[in-house]
Formats: sequence, structure tokens, C-alpha cells
Amino acid sequence: MSIQLRSEIERKFRNKEFTCEKELTMSIISGKYKVVIIWHLGNEGSHRYSELFKLFKGISNRILTKQLRDLEQDGIISRHVYPVAPPKVEYFLTDMGKTLLPIVNDIWRWGKENMQ
Amino acid sequence: MSIQLRSEIERKFRNKEFTCEKELTMSIISGKYKVVIIWHLGNEGSHRYSELFKLFKGISNRILTKQLRDLEQDGIISRHVYPVAPPKVEYFLTDMGKTLLPIVNDIWRWGKENMQ
Repeated sequence: MSIQLRSEIERKFRNKEFTCEKELTMSIISGKYKVVIIWHLGNEGSHRYSELFKLFKGISNRILTKQLRDLEQDGIISRHVYPVAPPKVEYFLTDMGKTLLPIVNDIWRWGKENMQ
Repeated sequence: MSIQLRSEIERKFRNKEFTCEKELTMSIISGKYKVVIIWHLGNEGSHRYSELFKLFKGISNRILTKQLRDLEQDGIISRHVYPVAPPKVEYFLTDMGKTLLPIVNDIWRWGKENMQ
């Protein structure tokens, strides 16, 4: 988790903006596409931006970039920029992001079971 | 899950508004207070409205009522109205709601571990 995020979270706890730890986790994963991003990076390995973009119907670049930036600031994903032309950027789960994967997989499984 | 919700979800899948099952689950639990409500009902048993209200600093009646109504429509919680005076309403997890509890407990545990 970034130092920036940690101090922001500590501030929120001090100000009673977070009631508890559950809200912390939800604040990290509850963006509309975040769980899906974590699932794909965790279960299928690193993805390029364009590959992530294709996963979502009708998403805008602005929204996807924002979700990726949030996840990066929260220490859940990281990106590697290859210093070659054409520019290539790959996103992958950090070690901390990997600890969220069991929850994300359970979220997927629950949705699957309850759609049947 | 209510018939109403199921048909709404089926419509969303048809229209490609949901990419996948993960989004279904997130659409059910990602209201700001929903995970917290599920955690308390699941781990501490049924709660009266006033007891739930006290759990959240600065929540409005309008917001709490909306979150409870969503969860009820999604088949996650149910309420029992006692036919006595003064009126007493208790909320509890449904059998389907109980299947979400392991995920909610993991969400809590993850937040706890990552705040330390």
C-alpha cells in the first residue's frame, strides 16, 4: 500500500469517515470494473492496456484509466513500461493485489452460482 | 433472489450491461454500507432498524432505508414486522444472504490485516 494511501486511510479512520475495516476493503475494490480487472490480472497474468480495454463493452478510456490509476495508487496493481518502440505498457497484480484474489474469485463464483 | 431482480439481471446480461458474474455480485454488495449491514446481521444476528442506524456515523434515514430496501429486493435480507405496539421491525439475513457471509468476512479480514 502506498504511503499516500495509508495516510489518507489513517485520516479517514481518525475522522470516523470509515466505520471499520470492511469499508477500507470496499473502498479499494468497489469501482465498477476493479474486481473484473483484478480477476483477469490474477487468473490470466499480466495484460496490456489495449487487452484490458477490450474486456469491457462500452468503457471509455477516461474511466478505464481512472480505475487503473486508483488500483495502482492503492498498491493493488503495478505497471511495467517497456523502454522500446512502439511503447508497451503491461499491468500486473502486486503481491498485495494477489492477497485480494481469493476474495475476487469467491465474488465471481457467487455470481455464477446465483445466476443459475 | 426475487423474480423481479432475476428478470432485471437477465435483461442486463442480454443488453451486455453486465460483462460477467463478478459484476452481478458487486452490484449487490457494493453500496457503501451493504457489506457492513451483511456482516452485522450475519455475525451478530437480527437487528432492529434503530440498532442498524447506530452502527453508522452520520448516515441519514433516507440512505439507510435505501440500502436496506436494495438488499431486501435482492433477496439478501428480510424483515419481520411484529404485529404489536410499539411497532417493531427486525432485519435478518436470508438463506441466500448467508451464502454471502464468507465473502463479507474475508473482506473484513483483509481490511483488518492491511490496516496493521
